[in-house]
This record gives sequence, structure tokens and C-alpha cells, in this order.
Amino acid sequence: MTPPQPRQRIPVTVLGATGVVGQRFVRRLANHPWFRVDHLAASERSAGQRYGEACAWRLGGEPHGGLADLEVRACDPSAAPAPIVFSALDSGPAKEIEPAYARAGSLVFSNASAFRMAVDVPLLVPEVNADHLDLVDVQREARDWSGAIVTNPNCTSTVLVMALAPLHRAFGVEKVFVATMQATSGAGYPGVPSLDILSNVVPHISGEEEKVETETQKMLGTLQMGRIVPAAATVSAMCHRVPVIDGHTEAVSVQLRGNPAPEEVAEALRTWSSVPQEMQLPSAPTRPILLHGEPSRPQPRLDVEYGEGAAQGMAVHVGRVRRCPMLGVKFTLLGHNTERGAAGASVLNAELAHARGRISL
Amino acid sequence: MTPPQPRQRIPVTVLGATGVVGQRFVRRLANHPWFRVDHLAASERSAGQRYGEACAWRLGGEPHGGLADLEVRACDPSAAPAPIVFSALDSGPAKEIEPAYARAGSLVFSNASAFRMAVDVPLLVPEVNADHLDLVDVQREARDWSGAIVTNPNCTSTVLVMALAPLHRAFGVEKVFVATMQATSGAGYPGVPSLDILSNVVPHISGEEEKVETETQKMLGTLQMGRIVPAAATVSAMCHRVPVIDGHTEAVSVQLRGNPAPEEVAEALRTWSSVPQEMQLPSAPTRPILLHGEPSRPQPRLDVEYGEGAAQGMAVHVGRVRRCPMLGVKFTLLGHNTERGAAGASVLNAELAHARGRISL
Amino acid sequence: MTPPQPRQRIPVTVLGATGVVGQRFVRRLANHPWFRVDHLAASERSAGQRYGEACAWRLGGEPHGGLADLEVRACDPSAAPAPIVFSALDSGPAKEIEPAYARAGSLVFSNASAFRMAVDVPLLVPEVNADHLDLVDVQREARDWSGAIVTNPNCTSTVLVMALAPLHRAFGVEKVFVATMQATSGAGYPGVPSLDILSNVVPHISGEEEKVETETQKMLGTLQMGRIVPAAATVSAMCHRVPVIDGHTEAVSVQLRGNPAPEEVAEALRTWSSVPQEMQLPSAPTRPILLHGEPSRPQPRLDVEYGEGAAQGMAVHVGRVRRCPMLGVKFTLLGHNTERGAAGASVLNAELAHARGRISL
Amino acid sequence: MTPPQPRQRIPVTVLGATGVVGQRFVRRLANHPWFRVDHLAASERSAGQRYGEACAWRLGGEPHGGLADLEVRACDPSAAPAPIVFSALDSGPAKEIEPAYARAGSLVFSNASAFRMAVDVPLLVPEVNADHLDLVDVQREARDWSGAIVTNPNCTSTVLVMALAPLHRAFGVEKVFVATMQATSGAGYPGVPSLDILSNVVPHISGEEEKVETETQKMLGTLQMGRIVPAAATVSAMCHRVPVIDGHTEAVSVQLRGNPAPEEVAEALRTWSSVPQEMQLPSAPTRPILLHGEPSRPQPRLDVEYGEGAAQGMAVHVGRVRRCPMLGVKFTLLGHNTERGAAGASVLNAELAHARGRISL
Repeated sequence: MTPPQPRQRIPVTVLGATGVVGQRFVRRLANHPWFRVDHLAASERSAGQRYGEACAWRLGGEPHGGLADLEVRACDPSAAPAPIVFSALDSGPAKEIEPAYARAGSLVFSNASAFRMAVDVPLLVPEVNADHLDLVDVQREARDWSGAIVTNPNCTSTVLVMALAPLHRAFGVEKVFVATMQATSGAGYPGVPSLDILSNVVPHISGEEEKVETETQKMLGTLQMGRIVPAAATVSAMCHRVPVIDGHTEAVSVQLRGNPAPEEVAEALRTWSSVPQEMQLPSAPTRPILLHGEPSRPQPRLDVEYGEGAAQGMAVHVGRVRRCPMLGVKFTLLGHNTERGAAGASVLNAELAHARGRISL
Repeated sequence: MTPPQPRQRIPVTVLGATGVVGQRFVRRLANHPWFRVDHLAASERSAGQRYGEACAWRLGGEPHGGLADLEVRACDPSAAPAPIVFSALDSGPAKEIEPAYARAGSLVFSNASAFRMAVDVPLLVPEVNADHLDLVDVQREARDWSGAIVTNPNCTSTVLVMALAPLHRAFGVEKVFVATMQATSGAGYPGVPSLDILSNVVPHISGEEEKVETETQKMLGTLQMGRIVPAAATVSAMCHRVPVIDGHTEAVSVQLRGNPAPEEVAEALRTWSSVPQEMQLPSAPTRPILLHGEPSRPQPRLDVEYGEGAAQGMAVHVGRVRRCPMLGVKFTLLGHNTERGAAGASVLNAELAHARGRISL
Repeated sequence: MTPPQPRQRIPVTVLGATGVVGQRFVRRLANHPWFRVDHLAASERSAGQRYGEACAWRLGGEPHGGLADLEVRACDPSAAPAPIVFSALDSGPAKEIEPAYARAGSLVFSNASAFRMAVDVPLLVPEVNADHLDLVDVQREARDWSGAIVTNPNCTSTVLVMALAPLHRAFGVEKVFVATMQATSGAGYPGVPSLDILSNVVPHISGEEEKVETETQKMLGTLQMGRIVPAAATVSAMCHRVPVIDGHTEAVSVQLRGNPAPEEVAEALRTWSSVPQEMQLPSAPTRPILLHGEPSRPQPRLDVEYGEGAAQGMAVHVGRVRRCPMLGVKFTLLGHNTERGAAGASVLNAELAHARGRISL
Repeated sequence: MTPPQPRQRIPVTVLGATGVVGQRFVRRLANHPWFRVDHLAASERSAGQRYGEACAWRLGGEPHGGLADLEVRACDPSAAPAPIVFSALDSGPAKEIEPAYARAGSLVFSNASAFRMAVDVPLLVPEVNADHLDLVDVQREARDWSGAIVTNPNCTSTVLVMALAPLHRAFGVEKVFVATMQATSGAGYPGVPSLDILSNVVPHISGEEEKVETETQKMLGTLQMGRIVPAAATVSAMCHRVPVIDGHTEAVSVQLRGNPAPEEVAEALRTWSSVPQEMQLPSAPTRPILLHGEPSRPQPRLDVEYGEGAAQGMAVHVGRVRRCPMLGVKFTLLGHNTERGAAGASVLNAELAHARGRISL
């Protein structure tokens, strides 16, 4: 099944375009087959400047995604309107700006945490809970908006739920324990001071453990009569920052219904394929999970950039699936925190929405 | 109670003196109040050289512990005899050399893994299981040796058991889950190639998880009728190497009998004091566990060197004691892998043996 | 001018295919338009194994360049013959194996240092001294070989000479001072132990400074009557290892004839284009030098991978061109040590040889 | 010659006590034989808080230097007066606050750059230019202050001038080229973002090269008729930030009058002893320069903390003294940027002032 190609590329606005996640959006969208960046929006301080002036480009590849000369606008639906809006805003500004866009008719795909846990807002990972997108109808009615807000989860939750989803479907997830080793890019720029992280581990990331514990339950939940019933799975997270640039590593132990053997679990992970794969969405990885055989893999430096084109960095990686004397099965999990866990997540959500006919132009 | 001071410092031999753990022994013993280094022993390749030639000093402080001119001997009880022997040997050579010394009458304090799990060999951490030292009598009789071998656990196990011991005594440990973030110094020199660890996490350390799981049970076990009955606690470990120079961080979740509140657990950790503290052994930390209040602590770079003189690096650190939805209580744990977890561990064991009158001169 | 396309891709052998530079060769050649890997050769230890078994793949991208099932052969012209041979051998084995191949008729493109300074062996960087390739004729006659050896310089020398060449042509280089900050990947695998480099600088790389000083003079020299007359430029190098994965940064100060202004120097660097660009060789960067305007650039992490397809990592980067109170002009220089400075260098040399009709099939 | 011991420890105020250099001052002064901290002062935001609340302690050793309960005052001579003031202020606030203290009669030992190049302010390194302290008389008269300001140089300049001083005295320094590899702690906290420095080199530190070039000339200059005549030596600096926690490494090439052999240069460095050594000032290293024989030394991680008690981190390290084809002699230089180059520098200056009878109580 090939996805419907839009006649012409759909104009989009990127909110918070000057930050590091914003830059990831810009780079992803520079060559996107369906979307083209029409407006870059940022804080008042940057508005009116050329994008090339307004932000120091911190990624590899073509500087400023080729948009150095585009004028940065204010984060305001009248100044920078578009049917699709990607939000790389911090949670504070997102609380005001995202509803303004939704009210004005935009479909806002947000990486911010502001609305993730709202009862009428989808917390969407297309491989995991594509049907939660229908919550948009509830949201529109409840809030009387012509547009809507669709969120993607926190980077750590995204990576985790990608591995839990096939296990939840195949067996049922009862309990999850996860200890994370998170890249510094997850904290944005300037983010983590180098003095805190060179040759060091920081055993606390504010609010992160709570997000992982609650977001996971929401995403694994079911949409029933216009609301999400969270999954009953117990989740316990311990989050750590480590001196790694990109890629969150997660040590995961799970208790599954029926206590399947590690081989069965590995097979369920390896063979998983879901909606984005079936719909051949542009940013969908060929396989959502790559299962590694070597005991020393996956490793962030070697594996996290895996994938071609728009799907680069969009698969998650699993290795060392083995018996856990505590919960039943344990494994190493790895995913790209600023691609699969941020910019790429929002873009994939927008692709799903478009493929499902939910973008009105 | 002040420990008995030896009339004159007891001569000791360091086996494997040229490696990084060997160097830690040499540095620790340079100013030790009870022991003085009489012989440095290493492989045939180094024997006959001056210590200063035989090894590139890789630590701070006085190069070669002031013993640069001492001749390196072969690892042989006739070439380098002593009543007390510290072994920094690799497991392979340890299998032959340590018994040779024990047979010749030395008390061998070994950091090697070769004999740790032998039924008649103490796996000793003085704060945890000082009474296991009595296994030496069983060993001597069984093997017909005039000396004996006393081992200290793997670095990761040592740090873990230091936090479990007071909880086991106060409540009873039923289940333990630990995910580690281990320093590269734990792998010796040359050890971990820089290409494997710069901006990376390696999710596998050969044999480490098994050691943590079995050694912990042995150490928390009880000595009954000349043998150790391992503790019934279930232990599950996931071990990772991270770009940290010194200090193993461990994310620990425990199930304790009676499910005590985090505050009770914190109090049991904070107030713990044990045999080495009571006996005022020279390398004993004033408090075996330092409890941190700031949520971002402990951190290896800031905390692992804590302590004065011989006790430097000998305490372990606990932070963020809080409820775990999985097992009951979780916390961050940190200890110095090459001091508390290696050289300092053996030296403290020897101090205990001396204080208990088990060193015959 | 488009280069002549070979009718079918030319078979090549990679010597030392299991090491890290060997892997870079394999990855580069996997999709090369002119060459295809026919044989992978390595030490006796690996011969007979599948490539996938014989080496742990340490790069990103498709594991083993898609050649995991190819049998590894011995480094022997009868076992693994080819018209073009790429050598990633260490200098010791190269001394015997490379002449054996040249004698057997292969054109050997070598990254090893064994023959770089031999009077009849080209030390070739196509942008810098393409005409030195003619030394092959002298070599063949002198050694009575039907093949020949063509070397590329040490990684640090390569990056340096790329910046010096346009200045030498435009003005004449009289004196060069260079202090390097070199990536650990330059030392191969296992290479630099992590304990030596985490949060550290090592101020010595064995033999490196001498290579930079002599190789640079040979490459900037002129081919006259069958021999290279080295350039008279004085070169002084101070080489350091720093905790960087890929990319050598070099702090360069130069004295140029006529003492041109920094602006003239910058212009000469910025506008430089040379033989590989004119011949549109597949691995040639569009511009050999990228001149950066921001004072904090170039930086290895952000800039070193620049470029598309076969030209990725093949440009060098210059920033902060400014007056030097010592020698006249100083600037920051950056290049990819294992691409431009190793595997890519040899491949570009082979492309030049083919384009000049020097490959006999 | 033993220095005069003050009857009782002299009360001092630390300005900017909550920052990282401020914390270094506090730690250094906690056990100082001559000085005791009477007041800790910081910005209005912190004033009134306990020191333990006002700042997160970022160093090892006893948290907050044992002064966690001391109330932080405003940076104001009436709120926090003392005969000796140590200033860890940023340059901006220093411009107002330091003169206010000097006017009120304090002797201000400042690590800030605000007054370093003022004609009547000593830029003092006791080993290098102890006599420049006399400039204080000129300053007092010119400014009509009862106190005075004494500055120490930038961290990079300090380390450099420590090696140049004995060469200037023995031979005369004509030209100096220095390429630096600087630790991130030099940028304070939060300072360098981790995303800028993990596996990276940043080739620009704002204003640093100019400081090194001008401060060095002033310090090597001579005090004649109430003013400093700068040394005629030409200095060229290229400054880089590298992923190192503590310790600035400098690659130095020098042209000396008479072009002495490297052996003579090494001997002049090795045997150097100066005023602080003769006066046995508490923070003076036994030898100001440690000359290393191993080619791979000095290294920041292994060498920078060298020294005992107050002299820890106060020596600089030199290695690989050898001929330079460019300027004559080159060598590797290393020093502790936040001890010798910041807090320790100011404290040593105050010790000199006290020993010379310039502190009026």
C-alpha cells in the first residue's frame, strides 16, 4: 500500500525553529517529500532576523537546511500561519502558543510536554497507538477548535514504548523496570554544562522519571468511548545523564503475561511491523526494531544513526534479550533521542495524519 | 576500641605490582601504618628490573609510591616471600600462584576472581561479613595449607553489597535489581579502547552480571558448620560501561521484608556502622555509607574520592532513596571501583585479619 | 570534463581488510562507481573465515559493507590478485606484501608508511601533486616491477598539505609551525586506551612529528628529471592526542613569500580548485577547502563529515585566518583523519591513476 | 628563611564566593595557616542566605569548605569588610566593587581581568615579578586609595609566564609561539555546554589570545621609575578548548637570545627557584617547574594535581624540551588553570604581600 502523495508539498510552520530540536525539524523537512517549510517562527528576540542570523547552526549537513535567508517570524498564527505546525517550543511558551494555532485551524504536532497528559490530546507514536489519533475529534469538540494538538512523548518514553508495544500486543506487559543512560543532546542547548558531565554520571533528570512512568501507561492504553484507558502496567524508571552526544540507552526488565521465553520475546520484537510500515510513511523505518545478536550491541555511537534518508535514526535497537531472575526478561534498548524521540516523532505523526486524510488544506 | 598496633610494620609482597590495581596497592601501602612493602612481584618479563623501569606509573601522587628503585621479583614464594601477600593478579595466573603462596604459609589477600566462589574461601567485606574470615580454618584443613587465601569481591559486587548489608540486617533483602554504569578503570590498562567508549555506552561486560548475582548471595550468606549458606535473595544485574574514569554508579531497586518506607531505609543506610568502624581499622571509612540529600548526587566525579588518608575512596555513597513502584524502594549507589572495589578492599581485609590475630609472624 | 567511466567496475583487493582503516576502505568501495571489491585479504589468522566472522564491524552504515559472506584470503598476490590493490596494512607487513603485489603487476595504493619516503615512490595527494604520479615510471624501471606502489601521506600531513598547497602556489611557503589536536581514531583499534585519553591530552605520538615535517616537504616538492626535489619550506610540528573520535584539528602559522595579508591568504584558500575537481573524480570534494566565517569554526564534531556520497569527509576546513605576530598568518585547519587522511586518500589516488589511464586491465 | 607567621590568622573576605573560582578560594582558605575567611560575599541574589543554600558545591573535599552555615553578604566594604579581599568576581562587577574595597582600605587580590592591564596595577606572579608589587605605592598615590588592587593574570598567561620567566632571566625571550589546549573548568560554571565539547575541539576562546599576548609582555617587563616597561618579546597565541576537566596544556616554541641548546633550556627550567620558594610561602610549590623525562608527559589527568597541601596544583610541568626548526626550542607545558591560574594565584600573591609587610591590620 503506497501512501497518497500530496499534489504539491504542504506548507508547514516550525515553532521554536532556532533551538536544537527546531534545527532538527528544519533539517528533516528540508527534503521532505510531502511537506515544505513555509515559515520559521521563534521568540520575539529572533523575529525579523534572517534564520541564518537568528541561530547558530549546531548540526552537520547543509547549514540552516538551506533556509538561512528565510525571515524568522513571531510564533503567532497570523504572522506565520500554516495547515501543519511543528512545535519545538519549551513547555512554558507551548501552553499559550499551541492552543492559539489549534484555535486558528492548524494541526499542531508538538514535541513539548505541555499537553501530553491532557485527556483529549493524543500522545501518539504511529507504530504504537495510531488509533489514538481519533482523539482529535474529541478534542475539537471539547475545545471548540477547528485545528488540534497532537503530541509525541518524551524522548525516553518514546524509545521505551517502541519496544513495549509489540510485547504488549503479543503477551501483555504487566511490569516494567527501566534504568536509562541518556545523551546530553536531550537537554537541548546550552543544556548540560560540560563540568557536570565530563567523566561523570548525573543520577537525576528533573521530571523525567514521572514522564516515563505516566506517558507509557497512556500510550499503551486503549481509546474507549472518546477517552484513553491507561494500560495497567506498572512502570518504574531511574534516569541518568551520561557523557554521550546522541542516543538514549535503556536497561529494561519486563514481566509479561504468561512469562514467555526470551526467544519468543526476541522473535516478537524482531518481526514487529506496524501502521507506518504498512502505510509506507516517508519517515517510517523499514523495521521499527532492529534486533542485534552481538552481546556488545547496540551502542549509541555505532547504531543510533542507522537508517536511510527520512528514516535515519527512526528505528530503535534491541540487544541481549535474556532471562531476568527478577521480572522474566531483560534487554538493552537504544533509540535516537532527538530524531525518533523528538523531531522525527512529530514529523511521523504528521505523516500519519496526512495519510489518514486528517489534514485539511 | 583501638586496634592493636603491630610492634613494627609487617612485611608484605604485592603480586602483579606493575598493573593498575598493583599500582593502587603500592600507593595505598606506601604510608600504611601496619604494613610495609617488602617485595614487588610481577611476571617473568618484569622480574629483575627496577620497579621504576618495569612499569609506567599511571596514578597521581608520588611516582611508584617511592619504590622506583626496588627490584621486581618473580611471583614465587621463594623469590618474594612474606607473611601477608596482596594479589593483583589476573585470574589465570592467580590460579597457580596464589595456592603456591598459601601452601608456603602466606595469608594471601586476593583481588582476583579465581577463588572467590570456592566453598572454603572467604569472599570478604569486613563491614558485611567479617565472621566469614573463619572459613580460613576450614580451608587450611581441607587443603592442608599453612597459609590461606582470602578474596574480596568484584568491584561492582562490593559496592552493591555495602548498601545491601545494612538493609539485609535491618529488614531482610528479598529481591535486588541493579543496572550499573561502570568506570573504564575497572577494566585495567590498556583495558577499554577509547574508540569503544568516547561518547558511548557498552551494554556488556563479560562475566560481570553473573559475578554480581552469585557473589552477592555468597556475601550476604551465613557461615554455618564450616560452610556458607548463600542468602536467598534474588539478584538481577545489567552491567554497562560508560565514559567515566573512576567510580561505579549503580541504579538499585530492592524488595525488603515488611516493605519499609523509604525514610526507614534511608535511616538504616545512614546510621550503619560495622566491624571496621568499631575496630578503627586504618582503611575503614568513618561511616561506611554517606547518604546524600541533593537529588543530583552522588556523582562519580564529585564524590568518589571522598575520605581522608587510608580511608580515601573507601565509603560508598547513596542518594535519592525513594519509593519504587516495582520492588518497594530504589536509590542511586556509587563507590570507588579500584579503591573500595579492589586494592583498598584487600588491604582492609588484611587489616581485619591482623586485628583478629590471624597473621602469624 | 567528465572522467572516463570504466565499462565495468574494476576488481580490487583490500589488504588488511579487518582493521579499522580496512573497514573504511570496504565501506567507501561498497558503492564506488568505478571499483568493486573482489577480494578481502588479511592476516593468516583471519584467512579462510567469512568477513563477517573475521572482523567486528566498528563503523556505522551497512555492516561489513554488505560483504559479510565474502571469504577472507591471505595477503598474497596468488590468493587475492587484482589490478588495483588498496593497502590498509601496518608498516611492518607492508614492507613485504606491497612489493610482492607490485612485482605481480598490481598498482598498490597504500596507506602504510613503509614506502612513503622512498625516492621512487609517489607520496600523492591529487589536489597537491598529481604530477608526482609519474614517478611510477621511474619506480617500475628501477625495481623491474610490472606494477607499482603509490602511497598517501600520514593523516596529519595530508590535512596540512591540503591547506599549504594553494598557498605554496600563490605565494611560496617559507616556514610552517603546526600544533595538532588529533582524534583517537588515528591510532586504529584498539589504539589509544581510554584511561589515557578521557579528560586528558597526550603530548606525544610516536614518529608523528617527523612524518609531518618530512612528508610535507616531499609533497610540496617538484618532480625534476625523475626525482623529487623537496620544497625548501621549514616545518615544525607538535602533535597531541585529544579526546575526539574523528577529525584532526591543526593550529597553523605560516610565513609566506611577500607576506600577503590575511584576506589574500583566505581568498587563495577559498577559491582553490585543482586536478580532482577539474577531472570530477568520484571522491573529489566540490571544493577542496571550505573556508568558515564564524570564529568558533571549524569544529571536528560539526564539520568533519561534511560532503555528499563518496566525497563525504574529503574536504578540509579552514577558519580564523588572521595575522600572526610570529610568522605572518595563522589559521585553524581541520580534516577527517580516517577518510581524507587514510581510506579516502588512497581511493582518490586510484581514481586519479585510472583517469590518467594508468590502470592496465 | 622562614616567613613571618602572623600572630593570629588574618580575616579575609571572598568576593564572588558562590561561583566555581570562589569555591576554590573557599577550599584553599579553609585550612590556610595565615588567613581565615571572615566574610563570604556574592551578588544581591545570594546575600542573606546561608552559604550552603546559596551555592551548589561543585568541588571534592569537605562541602562548602566547612562554611555552609556562614551568611553570605553583599559585595560591599561596609557589609563584608576585611584587610585582605580575594575577588573571584566577573570582570563587569569587578570594575565597581574592587575599587570600592581599595578605597575603603582593603588590599584586593583579584582574579578578574578588569584592572590587569591598568598602568598602576601589578599583574603579579610571585615567582616571575615579585618586585612589581611595589606598583601598589604608585597606585595608592595616583588614586588616593588607602588600599590597593593586585591582580593575577589569566590562567593561560600564568602557566605560560611560569615557563618563560626562568628563560627570560637566563637567556632573554625574543619570540614565543603558543598553541593551547584548555580545560573547560577555565570557563566557569555553567560555562562550556557539553554539546560543544564532547568529542570536540573549539578553536576560539573570546579575548583569550589577546590576553596571553599582552599580559605576558607586561609580566616579563621591568618596573622603572614607577611604571612597567613591557618586555620586547613577540608573543603569538592560538587558543583552543578541549574536553578536559582541569589543566591547560600549552605547546610552546621559543626563540631565545643566543639560541641555547635544548639541554641548557631544560636545565634552566629544572633548576629554577624564585622568591616564593626562598620565602617559603605556604602556597609555594617546592619547585615552581617540574621537568618530566617521559615523552608522553606531562598530561593533565596525571600531573595537574601534583603537590601537597596548599601547594597542590601550584607547580607547572614541562616535558619534551627539544629543538624546534622554527624558533629554536619547543616544549610541552601544563598547569592547573583554576588553582595556579586562578584561586591559588591570588592567595600566593596575598602571601607575598603579607611576607613583605604590606598588609596593615
